[in-house]
Amino acid sequence: MLIQIYYEQIYMEKELLLMLPGPVPIPERVRFAMSRQAINHRSPEFGAAYADCVRVLKTAFGTTNDLFVISGSGTAGMEAAIAGVGRDKEIACIVNGKFGERLYKISQRYGKAHEIKSDWGTPVNLEALKAQLETGAQIVTLVHNETSAGIKNPAEEIGKLCRKHDALFIMDGITSIGGDVVEADKWGVDIAITGSQKCFAAPAGLAMVSVSKRAWERVTRNPPYYLDLAAYKKSASGTPMETPYTPAVPLFLALRESCLMIEEEGLPVRIARHKKMSGAVQAAAKTWGLSLFPKTDKLHSCSSTVTAIEYPAGVRDDEMRGIIKKMGIVIAGGQDHLKGKIFRIGSMGAVSAPEILATLAATQHALTKCGFQRKGDGVEAAAEVLG
Amino acid sequence: MLIQIYYEQIYMEKELLLMLPGPVPIPERVRFAMSRQAINHRSPEFGAAYADCVRVLKTAFGTTNDLFVISGSGTAGMEAAIAGVGRDKEIACIVNGKFGERLYKISQRYGKAHEIKSDWGTPVNLEALKAQLETGAQIVTLVHNETSAGIKNPAEEIGKLCRKHDALFIMDGITSIGGDVVEADKWGVDIAITGSQKCFAAPAGLAMVSVSKRAWERVTRNPPYYLDLAAYKKSASGTPMETPYTPAVPLFLALRESCLMIEEEGLPVRIARHKKMSGAVQAAAKTWGLSLFPKTDKLHSCSSTVTAIEYPAGVRDDEMRGIIKKMGIVIAGGQDHLKGKIFRIGSMGAVSAPEILATLAATQHALTKCGFQRKGDGVEAAAEVLG
Repeated sequence: MLIQIYYEQIYMEKELLLMLPGPVPIPERVRFAMSRQAINHRSPEFGAAYADCVRVLKTAFGTTNDLFVISGSGTAGMEAAIAGVGRDKEIACIVNGKFGERLYKISQRYGKAHEIKSDWGTPVNLEALKAQLETGAQIVTLVHNETSAGIKNPAEEIGKLCRKHDALFIMDGITSIGGDVVEADKWGVDIAITGSQKCFAAPAGLAMVSVSKRAWERVTRNPPYYLDLAAYKKSASGTPMETPYTPAVPLFLALRESCLMIEEEGLPVRIARHKKMSGAVQAAAKTWGLSLFPKTDKLHSCSSTVTAIEYPAGVRDDEMRGIIKKMGIVIAGGQDHLKGKIFRIGSMGAVSAPEILATLAATQHALTKCGFQRKGDGVEAAAEVLG
Repeated sequence: MLIQIYYEQIYMEKELLLMLPGPVPIPERVRFAMSRQAINHRSPEFGAAYADCVRVLKTAFGTTNDLFVISGSGTAGMEAAIAGVGRDKEIACIVNGKFGERLYKISQRYGKAHEIKSDWGTPVNLEALKAQLETGAQIVTLVHNETSAGIKNPAEEIGKLCRKHDALFIMDGITSIGGDVVEADKWGVDIAITGSQKCFAAPAGLAMVSVSKRAWERVTRNPPYYLDLAAYKKSASGTPMETPYTPAVPLFLALRESCLMIEEEGLPVRIARHKKMSGAVQAAAKTWGLSLFPKTDKLHSCSSTVTAIEYPAGVRDDEMRGIIKKMGIVIAGGQDHLKGKIFRIGSMGAVSAPEILATLAATQHALTKCGFQRKGDGVEAAAEVLG
């Protein structure tokens, strides 16, 4: 009875369909995993939940390395990585979007950071990276899937360069791991990072970090206390598995449920689904006559977890997204200097055909209302991909 | 219908009554606030939830200073404080328990930390503190309520000393704020810290930090990126209120619900309830003929959020707590060198007479089973306090 009352209370508020590059819709099973009573975080029960998470995460990371879960946002995971091995080191930071910039900013707090820059959404400047490695860069940072620009960067290629020059490779896989192919070990990634609220379709608030043997051998002094990877390793090695400081217990229980759902679906099937969903969005954009924002080449491709589309001349961002929001759907605009230039549709996590079709139908309607003359029926083109 | 299924699934697992000094039982309203669908953390709706939290938190802190919520454990809040103002500074760290030690360890990563030490659960060495302040300590750290030893330290007195010597005062109020009287502004606390999973009876995973004008004027260079208080200030100043990095949204929604419950109960009533509940535990211990662990004097008192009791000779910790756990109740043992020497009963958050009576009845039974000859009926003594 009481449950019923809360149920109504919760759902009376208007629920928006979040088709963002995170946060993403969270499956009911995952949300309800949080509503149980508190459990002791120094108990076998918590340890078992943590272990379930780590087992599935290792598969998604493509790694057999140590892997920890930090209570904090993806940014906390980024900093744990850089602070862990980067103090006073030469760090080459690849930047072709907002999150690459963030890795660069964090790197500046610890080491001598060098920006390997290209315009947002354009290919990585591999020549500049090679030059930096030849002049002694000891660490390379990369955002695998650059959410701000919808581009997927060539992690495997960059991993090879790192190995060749004996540099550590830190890869932000926050919007690729769990939704796209990631092979951290095969690619030579020393520290990989992801977050709970993206392809895992769990709530925001957890960062996951894997650490290679090579990275452990090159740990630097005096990381932040809260983000000290060695402390996470020590606590995770005990029985039961623990975290060094009080973890966000409900978020671990939610992540565990998400991980079980990934095992049930099967990771390859999940990755194929992400590709299909983003493929449908790309097909719609092309059919409308709009350009995808990323400048791809044989090493770079469009993201399969978020699609960035250029606004046609005359269509105003706030107006178009406002019309879509009136239909209960939220898509993302551009960030920073891309505000008003692009819009972005997420296809992360549990997103499937109904959400994509609804979003594209609303977008097609809004584009027309904003005065854009579309070339063709993007919704039908998407249905063709999805059907 | 689906809700019903989840309800059963959740409750089929054995639920333990956690009478720990955190995590504490979470009211149903608070847990269910987490189960709603994800909301955008850059939306007016999220901003309103954050603002609700801050309004109530300021009352509980006794402050009109800036106040932020960080997605991370209490330790993250401690580090944000020390890293924010402590780099290369002389820091006097008061240590009379485990969490005082933690502040000392964190301080060592940033400044020149001096330990002002006394045995766990014994009064603060005020003479040593004065000497340190006279030789130039610029910051003092204190744990207001030392959970590891069940002692409440004289924050107001220490605040006066800090003012006299123009030192900043950092106070960990993780297990006092929201459950005991805290007057951060009146006491001259420059940075106060608390956590969500203690007296607020919300899930673990959020740290709350208040920052005085004086502290802002003395900010030091290069704090950790994720724990940079200036970034939290900037994001919280906008409309809507935001956090600089993706927050743990469900935990904010839970904390908001906890805060609304505090407003409904009334903070003074809540504080009086904590005092009454711990008073009942203290009365039981004395009636059994057991000693409370803290060595109090006119400045130091027993905590009203956790009661630490000395084991009588011959009673084994694992055996006694094992018997209690069989009855579905979890109390805490001692930490580090106090393992086996003391046991601790939490009275934080939403804990009221039924939980206290059940816990004391189970404890009384277990003490007898472990061979202890009690002097009197502690359960009846507690009922006398509670009735």
